Amino acid sequence: MNKKVLEDEIEVRIRFNEVDSMGIVWHGSYAQYFEDAREAFGRKYDLGYMRMFSEGFYTPLVDLKFSFIQPLTYGDKVKVKITFIETDAAKIIFDYEIRTISDNELRTRGRSVQVFLDKNYSLQWFKPPFFEEWKKKNA
Amino acid sequence: MNKKVLEDEIEVRIRFNEVDSMGIVWHGSYAQYFEDAREAFGRKYDLGYMRMFSEGFYTPLVDLKFSFIQPLTYGDKVKVKITFIETDAAKIIFDYEIRTISDNELRTRGRSVQVFLDKNYSLQWFKPPFFEEWKKKNA
Amino acid sequence: MNKKVLEDEIEVRIRFNEVDSMGIVWHGSYAQYFEDAREAFGRKYDLGYMRMFSEGFYTPLVDLKFSFIQPLTYGDKVKVKITFIETDAAKIIFDYEIRTISDNELRTRGRSVQVFLDKNYSLQWFKPPFFEEWKKKNA
Amino acid sequence: MNKKVLEDEIEVRIRFNEVDSMGIVWHGSYAQYFEDAREAFGRKYDLGYMRMFSEGFYTPLVDLKFSFIQPLTYGDKVKVKITFIETDAAKIIFDYEIRTISDNELRTRGRSVQVFLDKNYSLQWFKPPFFEEWKKKNA
Repeated sequence: MNKKVLEDEIEVRIRFNEVDSMGIVWHGSYAQYFEDAREAFGRKYDLGYMRMFSEGFYTPLVDLKFSFIQPLTYGDKVKVKITFIETDAAKIIFDYEIRTISDNELRTRGRSVQVFLDKNYSLQWFKPPFFEEWKKKNA
Repeated sequence: MNKKVLEDEIEVRIRFNEVDSMGIVWHGSYAQYFEDAREAFGRKYDLGYMRMFSEGFYTPLVDLKFSFIQPLTYGDKVKVKITFIETDAAKIIFDYEIRTISDNELRTRGRSVQVFLDKNYSLQWFKPPFFEEWKKKNA
Repeated sequence: MNKKVLEDEIEVRIRFNEVDSMGIVWHGSYAQYFEDAREAFGRKYDLGYMRMFSEGFYTPLVDLKFSFIQPLTYGDKVKVKITFIETDAAKIIFDYEIRTISDNELRTRGRSVQVFLDKNYSLQWFKPPFFEEWKKKNA
Repeated sequence: MNKKVLEDEIEVRIRFNEVDSMGIVWHGSYAQYFEDAREAFGRKYDLGYMRMFSEGFYTPLVDLKFSFIQPLTYGDKVKVKITFIETDAAKIIFDYEIRTISDNELRTRGRSVQVFLDKNYSLQWFKPPFFEEWKKKNA
């Protein structure tokens, strides 16, 4: 039995000031593109920062990884695809792919891992109940 | 009788990613240079965000103005001078000057105006007592 | 005889990381919102960075001014209106207004002034011919 | 025979606007801390962007990885250690460690991998001669 794939996709237009003096997008800007996708996913599936905060949790990133396959330049229009990766751990894992819209060429891949902290910044070793339910509902 | 001038100065090295594809510092980066100077001033004279927050106030900017006289480029080393501007209003006003260290040439000027909000985000029309005392002490 | 008003409007959703620890949008982020509007205007009226660069000119900002009337917070959806301001000088002047979409409340105003530099970074005291034509065409 | 370890260390003070509304440093800011260390390393060992550009090469990142062990908060003073990692490939690899200055606690680790592109953005499969010499000189 296949699980439903949870994913979302946003469009991003590369801004003038995201391009550095080598004429390509500065690598630090991709953290923003990934976060934009994560926020869109959060709105679509009700798993945003505000929801999690209201449930009593911070969900900071603990791992973040980028592979820059082909650089992006000013004016490029790209789509960022974000996919929820199933895990039994008390973690939220997403994979990312950035492709140019014109030719669907893969430019960047990445992965982020988030954990759950309570309001005292204590790491949660078990999945919070609301997240268990969210997973069941969306499985 | 002259008042004491309250001022501070920091050194900033222009970073690679603050330079855009025209080869000059992106204008948005100057907000950061000014804030760096403001934070240094806050540490020097005990008027930082944390102090004000612990006194019960947010102090967001309400006005911010930049004059870009000569652009800065990658690797420039500059000093940012910040000067406290006296006013009777319930405001914190600073003037800024950015000069290259090598030749003391003026590159940028600016001004910021902050107000006092209480923890309910209500604008304070009168100077908070702690700020009155701070001004007396530093006059 | 009235001149045509040249303007454009974009929608912006406030991002998680644009909000600081006071819970409001960091003032430095507004430079980006204004630039987003300026780039949209440039695309709509063919006056973007690339066009100007291909005509032989850089157009850096020399003045930039913000009035923060009411702060923005995470999740706010706003529209940024940009209006071209007529001047006889060899300058490009824009006014900006940011309003919340839900209630059309004015949150921020601003103005930017750009000049023309040639590829040797020399300031142009007279309007470049392509800009004269652009103005005539769009008047 | 041991190789000389090439490394450098910078101090960074966490800025107000690098902290998000969860009260911790936004993950995207670490790309900047790593780059600050890389630029310092470049100045110390003459392997900066300008040097490489004058030799005819861009050196964009192709991989970038962060492990966030403990979050940083406003006012933290940290040191960022950067270490050059030997490889036979036509790549520049650095490891990073961020520790709080007060107690030397490890907060963040990371790695970056850069490649060589010529001025036509073509990937170089072999180490450019200037880089071979640089390695010999610094071995």
